[in-house]
Amino acid sequence: MEQEKDRAVIYGRHPVVDAIRAGTPIDKVMLQQGIRGEMEKELRHLCKAEGIPLQVVPKERMNKMIRGNHQGVAALQALIRYYRLEDVLPTIFERSESPLLVVLDGITDVRNFGAIARTAEACGAHALIIAQKNSAQINAEAMKTSAGALAKIPVCRENSLATAIEYLKLSGIQVLASDLQARKPIYTLGLIQPIAFVLGAEGEGISPAIARMADETFIIPQKGTTDSFNVSVAAGMMLYEAMRQRELNG
Amino acid sequence: MEQEKDRAVIYGRHPVVDAIRAGTPIDKVMLQQGIRGEMEKELRHLCKAEGIPLQVVPKERMNKMIRGNHQGVAALQALIRYYRLEDVLPTIFERSESPLLVVLDGITDVRNFGAIARTAEACGAHALIIAQKNSAQINAEAMKTSAGALAKIPVCRENSLATAIEYLKLSGIQVLASDLQARKPIYTLGLIQPIAFVLGAEGEGISPAIARMADETFIIPQKGTTDSFNVSVAAGMMLYEAMRQRELNG
Repeated sequence: MEQEKDRAVIYGRHPVVDAIRAGTPIDKVMLQQGIRGEMEKELRHLCKAEGIPLQVVPKERMNKMIRGNHQGVAALQALIRYYRLEDVLPTIFERSESPLLVVLDGITDVRNFGAIARTAEACGAHALIIAQKNSAQINAEAMKTSAGALAKIPVCRENSLATAIEYLKLSGIQVLASDLQARKPIYTLGLIQPIAFVLGAEGEGISPAIARMADETFIIPQKGTTDSFNVSVAAGMMLYEAMRQRELNG
Repeated sequence: MEQEKDRAVIYGRHPVVDAIRAGTPIDKVMLQQGIRGEMEKELRHLCKAEGIPLQVVPKERMNKMIRGNHQGVAALQALIRYYRLEDVLPTIFERSESPLLVVLDGITDVRNFGAIARTAEACGAHALIIAQKNSAQINAEAMKTSAGALAKIPVCRENSLATAIEYLKLSGIQVLASDLQARKPIYTLGLIQPIAFVLGAEGEGISPAIARMADETFIIPQKGTTDSFNVSVAAGMMLYEAMRQRELNG
Protein backbone atom coordinates (compact mmCIF):
# COMPACT_ATOMS: atom_id res chain seq x y z
CA MET A 1 0.00 0.00 0.00
CA GLU A 2 1.13 3.48 -0.80
CA GLN A 3 -0.33 6.76 0.32
CA GLU A 4 -2.06 9.13 -2.14
CA LYS A 5 -2.01 12.34 -0.11
CA ASP A 6 -4.70 11.46 2.42
CA ARG A 7 -5.98 8.08 1.25
CA ALA A 8 -4.28 4.71 0.95
CA VAL A 9 -3.66 3.19 -2.48
CA ILE A 10 -4.06 -0.57 -2.91
CA TYR A 11 -2.21 -1.95 -5.94
CA GLY A 12 -1.64 -5.18 -7.81
CA ARG A 13 -4.28 -7.30 -9.51
CA HIS A 14 -5.18 -9.68 -6.70
CA PRO A 15 -5.03 -7.17 -3.83
CA VAL A 16 -7.40 -4.83 -5.69
CA VAL A 17 -9.88 -7.57 -6.64
CA ASP A 18 -9.74 -9.01 -3.12
CA ALA A 19 -10.34 -5.57 -1.58
CA ILE A 20 -13.40 -4.95 -3.74
CA ARG A 21 -14.75 -8.43 -2.97
CA ALA A 22 -14.17 -7.89 0.76
CA GLY A 23 -16.27 -4.74 0.61
CA THR A 24 -13.39 -2.34 1.34
CA PRO A 25 -14.67 1.22 0.70
CA ILE A 26 -13.07 2.42 -2.51
CA ASP A 27 -13.19 5.85 -4.13
CA LYS A 28 -12.05 4.68 -7.55
CA VAL A 29 -10.22 1.91 -9.36
CA MET A 30 -7.44 2.91 -11.74
CA LEU A 31 -6.66 0.71 -14.70
CA GLN A 32 -3.56 1.24 -16.81
CA GLN A 33 -4.22 2.30 -20.39
CA GLY A 34 -3.95 -0.59 -22.86
CA ILE A 35 -4.60 -3.39 -20.35
CA ARG A 36 -6.93 -5.98 -21.86
CA GLY A 37 -8.02 -9.52 -21.12
CA GLU A 38 -9.68 -11.41 -18.29
CA MET A 39 -8.44 -9.10 -15.54
CA GLU A 40 -9.81 -6.05 -17.30
CA LYS A 41 -13.19 -7.74 -17.83
CA GLU A 42 -13.38 -8.91 -14.24
CA LEU A 43 -12.50 -5.48 -12.90
CA ARG A 44 -15.03 -3.70 -15.09
CA HIS A 45 -17.68 -6.17 -14.02
CA LEU A 46 -16.86 -5.86 -10.32
CA CYS A 47 -16.73 -2.06 -10.41
CA LYS A 48 -20.06 -1.86 -12.18
CA ALA A 49 -21.68 -4.25 -9.73
CA GLU A 50 -20.29 -2.37 -6.71
CA GLY A 51 -20.84 1.11 -8.11
CA ILE A 52 -17.15 2.00 -8.05
CA PRO A 53 -15.89 4.47 -10.67
CA LEU A 54 -13.22 2.99 -12.97
CA GLN A 55 -10.65 5.31 -14.47
CA VAL A 56 -8.20 4.48 -17.27
CA VAL A 57 -4.81 6.02 -16.48
CA PRO A 58 -1.64 6.32 -18.62
CA LYS A 59 1.22 4.02 -17.61
CA GLU A 60 3.42 7.02 -16.73
CA ARG A 61 0.93 8.27 -14.17
CA MET A 62 0.54 4.82 -12.63
CA ASN A 63 4.32 4.49 -12.32
CA LYS A 64 4.63 7.94 -10.82
CA MET A 65 1.92 7.29 -8.27
CA ILE A 66 3.04 3.79 -7.25
CA ARG A 67 6.63 2.71 -6.83
CA GLY A 68 5.78 -0.97 -6.24
CA ASN A 69 4.73 -3.57 -8.85
CA HIS A 70 1.20 -2.41 -9.59
CA GLN A 71 0.56 -4.71 -12.58
CA GLY A 72 -1.52 -1.93 -14.12
CA VAL A 73 -4.19 -1.97 -11.43
CA ALA A 74 -4.70 0.23 -8.37
CA ALA A 75 -7.52 1.33 -6.10
CA LEU A 76 -7.84 4.51 -4.03
CA GLN A 77 -9.27 3.55 -0.68
CA ALA A 78 -12.20 5.68 0.50
CA LEU A 79 -12.49 7.45 3.86
CA ILE A 80 -16.18 6.55 4.10
CA ARG A 81 -18.37 3.63 3.17
CA TYR A 82 -20.64 4.37 0.23
CA TYR A 83 -24.27 3.34 0.16
CA ARG A 84 -26.75 2.56 -2.60
CA LEU A 85 -30.01 4.43 -2.75
CA GLU A 86 -32.02 1.23 -3.09
CA ASP A 87 -30.58 0.00 0.20
CA VAL A 88 -31.02 3.26 2.10
CA LEU A 89 -34.52 4.25 1.05
CA PRO A 90 -36.39 1.16 2.35
CA THR A 91 -34.80 1.52 5.80
CA ILE A 92 -36.16 5.08 6.10
CA PHE A 93 -39.67 3.96 5.22
CA GLU A 94 -39.35 0.98 7.57
CA ARG A 95 -38.69 3.39 10.44
CA SER A 96 -41.91 5.21 9.45
CA GLU A 97 -39.95 8.38 8.81
CA SER A 98 -40.63 10.83 6.01
CA PRO A 99 -37.51 10.82 3.82
CA LEU A 100 -35.50 14.04 3.65
CA LEU A 101 -32.75 13.64 1.06
CA VAL A 102 -30.16 15.90 -0.54
CA VAL A 103 -29.03 15.35 -4.13
CA LEU A 104 -25.77 17.07 -5.08
CA ASP A 105 -25.47 17.78 -8.79
CA GLY A 106 -21.96 18.77 -9.82
CA ILE A 107 -20.83 20.13 -6.45
CA THR A 108 -17.10 19.52 -6.74
CA ASP A 109 -15.91 22.02 -4.12
CA VAL A 110 -14.65 19.93 -1.23
CA ARG A 111 -15.43 22.51 1.46
CA ASN A 112 -18.94 23.18 0.24
CA PHE A 113 -19.53 19.44 0.11
CA GLY A 114 -18.26 18.96 3.67
CA ALA A 115 -20.30 21.92 4.94
CA ILE A 116 -23.48 20.58 3.31
CA ALA A 117 -22.88 17.16 4.86
CA ARG A 118 -22.50 18.77 8.29
CA THR A 119 -25.73 20.75 7.95
CA ALA A 120 -27.67 17.86 6.42
CA GLU A 121 -26.74 15.52 9.25
CA ALA A 122 -27.57 18.12 11.90
CA CYS A 123 -30.96 18.80 10.26
CA GLY A 124 -31.86 15.13 10.26
CA ALA A 125 -31.51 14.51 6.52
CA HIS A 126 -31.36 10.77 5.84
CA ALA A 127 -28.77 10.67 3.06
CA LEU A 128 -26.72 12.57 0.52
CA ILE A 129 -26.91 11.41 -3.08
CA ILE A 130 -23.97 12.08 -5.38
CA ALA A 131 -22.92 10.94 -8.86
CA GLN A 132 -19.87 8.78 -9.45
CA LYS A 133 -18.48 11.49 -11.71
CA ASN A 134 -18.32 15.27 -11.25
CA SER A 135 -18.62 15.12 -7.47
CA ALA A 136 -16.38 16.44 -4.73
CA GLN A 137 -13.54 14.21 -3.58
CA ILE A 138 -14.28 12.90 -0.13
CA ASN A 139 -10.80 13.58 1.16
CA ALA A 140 -9.40 14.62 4.53
CA GLU A 141 -10.48 18.23 4.00
CA ALA A 142 -14.07 17.23 3.22
CA MET A 143 -14.11 15.07 6.35
CA LYS A 144 -12.77 17.92 8.45
CA THR A 145 -15.22 20.51 7.08
CA SER A 146 -18.07 18.11 7.77
CA ALA A 147 -17.13 18.11 11.48
CA GLY A 148 -17.52 14.34 11.55
CA ALA A 149 -20.90 14.29 9.81
CA LEU A 150 -19.56 12.37 6.80
CA ALA A 151 -18.92 9.43 9.08
CA LYS A 152 -22.58 9.49 10.13
CA ILE A 153 -24.81 10.43 7.22
CA PRO A 154 -25.02 7.82 4.42
CA VAL A 155 -23.58 8.99 1.10
CA CYS A 156 -25.22 7.22 -1.85
CA ARG A 157 -22.92 7.16 -4.86
CA GLU A 158 -24.96 6.63 -7.99
CA ASN A 159 -23.85 5.80 -11.50
CA SER A 160 -26.42 8.21 -12.93
CA LEU A 161 -28.15 11.02 -11.04
CA ALA A 162 -30.98 10.99 -13.57
CA THR A 163 -31.67 7.31 -12.86
CA ALA A 164 -31.44 7.97 -9.13
CA ILE A 165 -33.97 10.80 -9.39
CA GLU A 166 -36.27 8.62 -11.48
CA TYR A 167 -36.04 6.03 -8.72
CA LEU A 168 -36.83 8.64 -6.05
CA LYS A 169 -39.91 9.77 -7.97
CA LEU A 170 -41.13 6.20 -8.43
CA SER A 171 -40.69 5.75 -4.67
CA GLY A 172 -43.09 8.61 -3.97
CA ILE A 173 -40.50 11.24 -3.15
CA GLN A 174 -41.10 14.81 -4.33
CA VAL A 175 -37.99 16.11 -6.07
CA LEU A 176 -37.54 19.84 -5.38
CA ALA A 177 -35.02 22.04 -7.12
CA SER A 178 -33.93 25.55 -6.24
CA ASP A 179 -34.12 27.80 -9.31
CA LEU A 180 -33.48 31.55 -9.42
CA GLN A 181 -36.18 31.87 -12.12
CA ALA A 182 -38.84 30.05 -10.07
CA ARG A 183 -41.79 31.93 -8.58
CA LYS A 184 -42.73 29.96 -5.49
CA PRO A 185 -40.83 30.84 -2.32
CA ILE A 186 -39.62 27.70 -0.58
CA TYR A 187 -41.86 28.31 2.45
CA THR A 188 -44.98 27.87 0.31
CA LEU A 189 -44.05 24.25 -0.47
CA GLY A 190 -45.12 21.34 1.72
CA LEU A 191 -41.91 19.84 3.06
CA ILE A 192 -43.35 17.35 5.53
CA GLN A 193 -44.01 14.80 2.81
CA PRO A 194 -41.06 12.70 1.53
CA ILE A 195 -38.75 15.08 -0.33
CA ALA A 196 -35.38 15.34 -1.98
CA PHE A 197 -33.70 18.72 -2.46
CA VAL A 198 -31.49 18.98 -5.54
CA LEU A 199 -28.53 21.35 -5.18
CA GLY A 200 -26.38 22.55 -8.07
CA ALA A 201 -22.89 23.98 -8.12
CA GLU A 202 -22.43 27.64 -7.43
CA GLY A 203 -22.53 29.66 -10.61
CA GLU A 204 -23.59 26.82 -12.87
CA GLY A 205 -26.64 25.69 -10.92
CA ILE A 206 -28.43 22.42 -11.50
CA SER A 207 -27.79 20.82 -14.91
CA PRO A 208 -30.77 21.35 -17.25
CA ALA A 209 -31.52 17.63 -17.71
CA ILE A 210 -31.75 17.18 -13.93
CA ALA A 211 -33.68 20.42 -13.39
CA ARG A 212 -36.33 19.27 -15.89
CA MET A 213 -36.95 16.16 -13.81
CA ALA A 214 -37.91 18.12 -10.67
CA ASP A 215 -41.51 17.92 -9.50
CA GLU A 216 -41.33 21.52 -8.27
CA THR A 217 -38.92 24.40 -8.46
CA PHE A 218 -38.69 27.12 -5.83
CA ILE A 219 -36.71 30.19 -4.89
CA ILE A 220 -35.12 31.19 -1.64
CA PRO A 221 -36.28 34.80 -1.36
CA GLN A 222 -33.60 37.45 -1.60
CA LYS A 223 -33.63 41.07 -0.61
CA GLY A 224 -30.15 42.36 -1.28
CA THR A 225 -28.19 42.66 -4.47
CA THR A 226 -25.49 40.10 -3.77
CA ASP A 227 -25.32 37.39 -6.40
CA SER A 228 -27.29 34.58 -4.72
CA PHE A 229 -26.34 32.57 -1.67
CA ASN A 230 -23.35 30.35 -1.15
CA VAL A 231 -24.52 26.81 -1.90
CA SER A 232 -23.87 25.53 1.62
CA VAL A 233 -25.79 28.47 3.11
CA ALA A 234 -28.67 27.86 0.66
CA ALA A 235 -28.67 24.18 1.66
CA GLY A 236 -28.86 25.28 5.29
CA MET A 237 -31.90 27.47 4.60
CA MET A 238 -33.73 24.68 2.73
CA LEU A 239 -33.01 22.09 5.38
CA TYR A 240 -33.94 24.52 8.15
CA GLU A 241 -37.29 25.19 6.44
CA ALA A 242 -37.98 21.45 6.12
CA MET A 243 -37.02 20.93 9.76
CA ARG A 244 -39.22 23.85 10.86
CA GLN A 245 -42.28 22.53 9.02
CA ARG A 246 -41.70 19.01 10.31
CA GLU A 247 -41.31 20.17 13.92
CA LEU A 248 -44.42 22.34 13.79
CA ASN A 249 -46.71 19.86 12.05
CA GLY A 250 -44.95 16.52 12.15
CA MET B 1 3.04 53.91 0.71
CA GLU B 2 4.07 50.32 1.12
CA GLN B 3 1.93 47.24 0.70
CA GLU B 4 1.01 45.00 3.66
CA LYS B 5 -0.05 41.84 1.82
CA ASP B 6 -3.36 43.07 0.47
CA ARG B 7 -3.74 46.52 1.97
CA ALA B 8 -1.72 49.68 1.54
CA VAL B 9 0.30 51.07 4.44
CA ILE B 10 0.49 54.84 4.89
CA TYR B 11 3.47 55.97 6.99
CA GLY B 12 5.01 59.08 8.43
CA ARG B 13 3.45 61.47 10.93
CA HIS B 14 1.82 63.96 8.61
CA PRO B 15 0.62 61.50 5.95
CA VAL B 16 -1.11 59.39 8.62
CA VAL B 17 -2.76 62.35 10.35
CA ASP B 18 -3.78 63.81 6.99
CA ALA B 19 -5.28 60.48 5.87
CA ILE B 20 -7.36 60.17 9.03
CA ARG B 21 -8.53 63.80 8.71
CA ALA B 22 -9.43 63.23 5.06
CA GLY B 23 -11.65 60.33 6.06
CA THR B 24 -9.52 57.65 4.38
CA PRO B 25 -10.84 54.24 5.53
CA ILE B 26 -8.29 52.82 7.96
CA ASP B 27 -8.15 49.40 9.58
CA LYS B 28 -5.71 50.39 12.31
CA VAL B 29 -3.06 52.93 13.24
CA MET B 30 0.29 51.59 14.43
CA LEU B 31 2.35 53.65 16.84
CA GLN B 32 5.91 52.77 17.66
CA GLN B 33 6.54 51.73 21.25
CA GLY B 34 7.98 54.53 23.36
CA ILE B 35 6.75 57.43 21.22
CA ARG B 36 5.42 60.22 23.42
CA GLY B 37 4.50 63.83 23.05
CA GLU B 38 2.14 65.98 20.99
CA MET B 39 2.04 63.60 18.03
CA GLU B 40 1.09 60.66 20.24
CA LYS B 41 -1.64 62.69 21.95
CA GLU B 42 -3.02 63.95 18.66
CA LEU B 43 -3.07 60.44 17.18
CA ARG B 44 -4.77 58.92 20.20
CA HIS B 45 -7.37 61.66 20.14
CA LEU B 46 -8.01 61.33 16.39
CA CYS B 47 -8.25 57.53 16.53
CA LYS B 48 -10.68 57.67 19.40
CA ALA B 49 -12.84 60.26 17.66
CA GLU B 50 -12.88 58.30 14.41
CA GLY B 51 -13.23 54.85 16.01
CA ILE B 52 -9.94 53.59 14.61
CA PRO B 53 -8.05 50.96 16.63
CA LEU B 54 -4.60 52.10 17.71
CA GLN B 55 -1.91 49.51 18.22
CA VAL B 56 1.47 50.02 19.88
CA VAL B 57 4.16 48.15 17.93
CA PRO B 58 7.84 47.47 18.75
CA LYS B 59 10.33 49.46 16.68
CA GLU B 60 11.73 46.28 15.14
CA ARG B 61 8.35 45.34 13.71
CA MET B 62 7.78 48.82 12.35
CA ASN B 63 11.18 48.75 10.64
CA LYS B 64 10.55 45.31 9.22
CA MET B 65 7.15 46.29 7.84
CA ILE B 66 8.19 49.67 6.41
CA ARG B 67 11.44 50.37 4.64
CA GLY B 68 10.80 54.13 4.33
CA ASN B 69 11.11 56.80 7.05
CA HIS B 70 8.00 56.00 9.10
CA GLN B 71 8.77 58.32 12.05
CA GLY B 72 7.14 55.74 14.33
CA VAL B 73 3.69 56.12 12.81
CA ALA B 74 1.86 54.03 10.22
CA ALA B 75 -1.73 53.26 9.19
CA LEU B 76 -3.11 50.16 7.48
CA GLN B 77 -5.57 51.34 4.87
CA ALA B 78 -8.93 49.55 4.92
CA LEU B 79 -10.66 47.89 1.97
CA ILE B 80 -14.04 49.16 3.10
CA ARG B 81 -15.41 52.28 4.71
CA TYR B 82 -16.48 51.75 8.31
CA TYR B 83 -19.68 53.15 9.72
CA ARG B 84 -20.87 54.13 13.17
CA LEU B 85 -24.01 52.59 14.56
CA GLU B 86 -25.40 55.99 15.58
CA ASP B 87 -25.17 57.13 11.95
CA VAL B 88 -26.63 53.97 10.42
CA LEU B 89 -29.57 53.33 12.73
CA PRO B 90 -31.45 56.62 12.16
CA THR B 91 -31.32 56.16 8.37
CA ILE B 92 -33.06 52.77 8.68
CA PHE B 93 -35.84 54.24 10.78
CA GLU B 94 -36.10 57.22 8.43
CA ARG B 95 -36.81 54.81 5.55
CA SER B 96 -39.60 53.32 7.73
CA GLU B 97 -37.90 49.94 7.66
CA SER B 98 -37.72 47.53 10.56
CA PRO B 99 -34.03 47.16 11.42
CA LEU B 100 -32.46 43.74 10.89
CA LEU B 101 -28.91 43.81 12.26
CA VAL B 102 -26.17 41.25 12.83
CA VAL B 103 -23.74 41.61 15.72
CA LEU B 104 -20.56 39.54 15.41
CA ASP B 105 -18.97 38.74 18.77
CA GLY B 106 -15.44 37.37 18.43
CA ILE B 107 -15.80 35.96 14.93
CA THR B 108 -12.20 36.16 13.77
CA ASP B 109 -12.35 33.60 10.96
CA VAL B 110 -12.04 35.60 7.77
CA ARG B 111 -14.04 33.18 5.62
CA ASN B 112 -16.89 32.86 8.08
CA PHE B 113 -16.98 36.62 8.33
CA GLY B 114 -17.10 37.04 4.54
CA ALA B 115 -19.77 34.34 4.19
CA ILE B 116 -21.94 35.98 6.88
CA ALA B 117 -21.61 39.35 5.14
CA ARG B 118 -22.71 37.77 1.85
CA THR B 119 -25.77 36.13 3.41
CA ALA B 120 -26.69 39.18 5.48
CA GLU B 121 -26.63 41.47 2.46
CA ALA B 122 -28.68 39.03 0.37
CA CYS B 123 -31.25 38.66 3.16
CA GLY B 124 -31.68 42.42 3.43
CA ALA B 125 -29.91 42.93 6.76
CA HIS B 126 -29.12 46.61 7.26
CA ALA B 127 -25.68 46.39 8.85
CA LEU B 128 -23.04 44.23 10.49
CA ILE B 129 -21.75 45.33 13.87
CA ILE B 130 -18.25 44.32 14.94
CA ALA B 131 -15.88 45.26 17.73
CA GLN B 132 -12.61 47.08 17.09
CA LYS B 133 -10.78 44.20 18.73
CA ASN B 134 -11.19 40.43 18.33
CA SER B 135 -12.85 40.68 14.93
CA ALA B 136 -11.97 39.18 11.56
CA GLN B 137 -9.55 41.12 9.41
CA ILE B 138 -11.37 42.58 6.45
CA ASN B 139 -8.72 41.55 3.96
CA ALA B 140 -8.80 40.43 0.34
CA GLU B 141 -9.97 36.95 1.30
CA ALA B 142 -12.88 38.31 3.36
CA MET B 143 -13.87 40.54 0.43
CA LYS B 144 -13.73 37.59 -1.97
CA THR B 145 -15.74 35.25 0.28
CA SER B 146 -18.37 37.95 0.66
CA ALA B 147 -18.90 37.93 -3.13
CA GLY B 148 -18.89 41.71 -3.13
CA ALA B 149 -21.33 42.08 -0.25
CA LEU B 150 -18.77 43.80 2.00
CA ALA B 151 -18.74 46.70 -0.42
CA LYS B 152 -22.51 47.05 -0.04
CA ILE B 153 -23.58 46.29 3.53
CA PRO B 154 -22.43 48.84 6.14
CA VAL B 155 -19.99 47.47 8.71
CA CYS B 156 -20.23 49.33 12.01
CA ARG B 157 -16.98 49.11 13.94
CA GLU B 158 -17.63 49.79 17.60
CA ASN B 159 -15.22 50.43 20.42
CA SER B 160 -17.29 48.26 22.75
CA LEU B 161 -19.89 45.69 21.72
CA ALA B 162 -21.55 45.99 25.13
CA THR B 163 -22.04 49.73 24.64
CA ALA B 164 -23.31 49.12 21.12
CA ILE B 165 -25.85 46.55 22.36
CA GLU B 166 -26.95 48.93 25.09
CA TYR B 167 -27.50 51.55 22.40
CA LEU B 168 -29.50 49.08 20.29
CA LYS B 169 -31.74 48.23 23.23
CA LEU B 170 -32.32 51.89 24.04
CA SER B 171 -33.27 52.37 20.39
CA GLY B 172 -36.05 49.80 20.70
CA ILE B 173 -34.25 46.92 19.02
CA GLN B 174 -34.73 43.42 20.40
CA VAL B 175 -31.35 41.76 20.88
CA LEU B 176 -31.58 38.03 20.17
CA ALA B 177 -28.84 35.54 20.88
CA SER B 178 -28.55 31.96 19.75
CA ASP B 179 -27.80 29.67 22.69
CA LEU B 180 -27.57 25.88 22.63
CA GLN B 181 -29.08 25.79 26.15
CA ALA B 182 -32.10 27.92 25.21
CA ARG B 183 -35.57 26.39 24.95
CA LYS B 184 -37.39 28.50 22.40
CA PRO B 185 -36.91 27.48 18.77
CA ILE B 186 -36.12 30.52 16.64
CA TYR B 187 -39.37 30.20 14.67
CA THR B 188 -41.42 30.93 17.81
CA LEU B 189 -39.88 34.41 18.12
CA GLY B 190 -41.37 37.45 16.41
CA LEU B 191 -38.77 38.65 13.96
CA ILE B 192 -40.75 41.33 12.14
CA GLN B 193 -40.06 43.87 14.86
CA PRO B 194 -36.66 45.62 14.91
CA ILE B 195 -34.09 42.97 15.82
CA ALA B 196 -30.38 42.33 16.10
CA PHE B 197 -29.02 38.79 15.99
CA VAL B 198 -25.86 38.24 18.02
CA LEU B 199 -23.52 35.59 16.64
CA GLY B 200 -20.58 34.10 18.54
CA ALA B 201 -17.49 32.32 17.31
CA GLU B 202 -17.74 28.64 16.58
CA GLY B 203 -16.85 26.57 19.60
CA GLU B 204 -16.68 29.47 22.03
CA GLY B 205 -20.09 30.95 21.33
CA ILE B 206 -21.19 34.38 22.48
CA SER B 207 -19.16 35.82 25.36
CA PRO B 208 -21.07 35.56 28.66
CA ALA B 209 -21.20 39.33 29.28
CA ILE B 210 -22.77 39.88 25.87
CA ALA B 211 -25.11 36.88 26.16
CA ARG B 212 -26.48 38.25 29.43
CA MET B 213 -27.52 41.46 27.67
CA ALA B 214 -29.75 39.67 25.17
CA ASP B 215 -33.51 40.26 25.41
CA GLU B 216 -34.17 36.69 24.29
CA THR B 217 -32.18 33.56 23.62
CA PHE B 218 -33.24 30.89 21.16
CA ILE B 219 -32.09 27.64 19.62
CA ILE B 220 -31.95 26.55 16.04
CA PRO B 221 -33.50 23.09 16.28
CA GLN B 222 -31.22 20.17 15.54
CA LYS B 223 -32.02 16.58 14.71
CA GLY B 224 -28.68 14.94 14.06
CA THR B 225 -25.71 14.34 16.28
CA THR B 226 -23.22 16.64 14.59
CA ASP B 227 -21.80 19.25 16.90
CA SER B 228 -23.94 22.29 16.04
CA PHE B 229 -23.99 24.26 12.81
CA ASN B 230 -21.20 26.16 11.16
CA VAL B 231 -21.62 29.80 12.22
CA SER B 232 -22.21 31.07 8.68
CA VAL B 233 -24.85 28.38 8.08
CA ALA B 234 -26.50 29.23 11.41
CA ALA B 235 -26.49 32.92 10.41
CA GLY B 236 -28.15 31.91 7.13
CA MET B 237 -30.90 30.04 8.96
CA MET B 238 -31.60 32.96 11.31
CA LEU B 239 -31.65 35.53 8.54
CA TYR B 240 -33.80 33.25 6.37
CA GLU B 241 -36.33 32.90 9.21
CA ALA B 242 -36.45 36.68 9.69
CA MET B 243 -36.88 37.18 5.94
CA ARG B 244 -39.62 34.54 5.80
CA GLN B 245 -41.60 36.13 8.63
CA ARG B 246 -41.17 39.59 7.15
CA GLU B 247 -42.29 38.46 3.66
CA LEU B 248 -45.34 36.63 5.00
CA ASN B 249 -46.54 39.31 7.39
CA GLY B 250 -44.63 42.44 6.56
